[in-house]
Amino acid sequence: MAEVVHMIDSEVFLAFSTYATIVVLKMMLMSLMTSYFHLTKQVFSNLEDTALVKTTEDRKKLVRVDPDVERVRRCHLNDLENIVPFVVIGLLYALTGPDLSMALLHFRVFVGSRFIHTVAYMMALPQPTRALAFGVGLFITFSMAYRVLTTALFL
Amino acid sequence: MAEVVHMIDSEVFLAFSTYATIVVLKMMLMSLMTSYFHLTKQVFSNLEDTALVKTTEDRKKLVRVDPDVERVRRCHLNDLENIVPFVVIGLLYALTGPDLSMALLHFRVFVGSRFIHTVAYMMALPQPTRALAFGVGLFITFSMAYRVLTTALFL
Amino acid sequence: MAEVVHMIDSEVFLAFSTYATIVVLKMMLMSLMTSYFHLTKQVFSNLEDTALVKTTEDRKKLVRVDPDVERVRRCHLNDLENIVPFVVIGLLYALTGPDLSMALLHFRVFVGSRFIHTVAYMMALPQPTRALAFGVGLFITFSMAYRVLTTALFL
Repeated sequence: MAEVVHMIDSEVFLAFSTYATIVVLKMMLMSLMTSYFHLTKQVFSNLEDTALVKTTEDRKKLVRVDPDVERVRRCHLNDLENIVPFVVIGLLYALTGPDLSMALLHFRVFVGSRFIHTVAYMMALPQPTRALAFGVGLFITFSMAYRVLTTALFL
Repeated sequence: MAEVVHMIDSEVFLAFSTYATIVVLKMMLMSLMTSYFHLTKQVFSNLEDTALVKTTEDRKKLVRVDPDVERVRRCHLNDLENIVPFVVIGLLYALTGPDLSMALLHFRVFVGSRFIHTVAYMMALPQPTRALAFGVGLFITFSMAYRVLTTALFL
Repeated sequence: MAEVVHMIDSEVFLAFSTYATIVVLKMMLMSLMTSYFHLTKQVFSNLEDTALVKTTEDRKKLVRVDPDVERVRRCHLNDLENIVPFVVIGLLYALTGPDLSMALLHFRVFVGSRFIHTVAYMMALPQPTRALAFGVGLFITFSMAYRVLTTALFL
């Protein structure tokens, strides 16, 4: 991290910005997918939300748990649990001045693994598809963390 | 992102720091609100927590699900799902050197929308108040992501 | 934040990078712990996941809620709710150029409090151990937010 200031203006940092933005946008799509399921399946978590699809009788029945909505929710939470570490550690990793090709490899594989993870989760593809996608993403983040700690360690 | 280094020391970056800190503090208040509901409504998720309000008999009865606690929890999770993308994309956006007035507009509208979202959620205000607050926040983050990707795209 | 650019290359920033990486890695271990419980206790959230341990009869019975898995999940979510604010506000705090000793104090106490929190949660230690660990972490983040807002306020 000796010349980190110059690093911020580098291609590595631009690449990080690009891939971090893409994968965070992907995560935000889970919010929209949840809303879509709520509205099309007419299943809600809050009584006041039922007014969005029904204004008269029996709105209470629409407040229930639905397996499809729960699946999107778990997929979304898994994104949060994995994409947040990628963004934090990836930012610090980008500032350690890695080779552009190595950095691109990390960013591309991570982002690819999360897209595969989402498709595998939403379509309930046979395991170990989703488990592998999850594991690859984890491995990439650990690999970047290793470089951050070996380059910048200051306890 | 040509002169990004100078940008970090700019008024846009100070504005980002201010609004990001405020909206993250708001999110943290949800933790305190959850604790407050746990203690005042005597509803807990873990058996060991019941000792905080009761030391003798029947502590197991206090481990249950309460609709008010679940509402705070959903509001908190929605904050995480939306404020994390704002912070990540907002930081990168601030580094692209946008006009101060445009940046302030983005930051203020987002933070305002999340305060409205929280009030609408906690008071169960009639829809579409909360849905609109959610949508405005999403739109702001997409708008910043658009600028990041058009300014810094490096695939 | 007058000379923030020089700050990024400082020991405070290296310390932040180190402690942020360590505490995010700790958070990621919760994912692995969840997977471990799923596999060893044979409890799953998705039908397709049951194929990881069983290929024949009665796989539906493995899709259920287990108290130990729920405990890891709550611990993981609590990490997200607290470590994300630390990382965001801690990054901005590091850029305000605090004294190295003060910064190290903040980072070390926060990271320590989250390790204690995890141990207290997973082993169900008697309260208020976990409540105190949670409170200390919250206080540290508030303290850093206070410095960010008093140094960088730009509304």
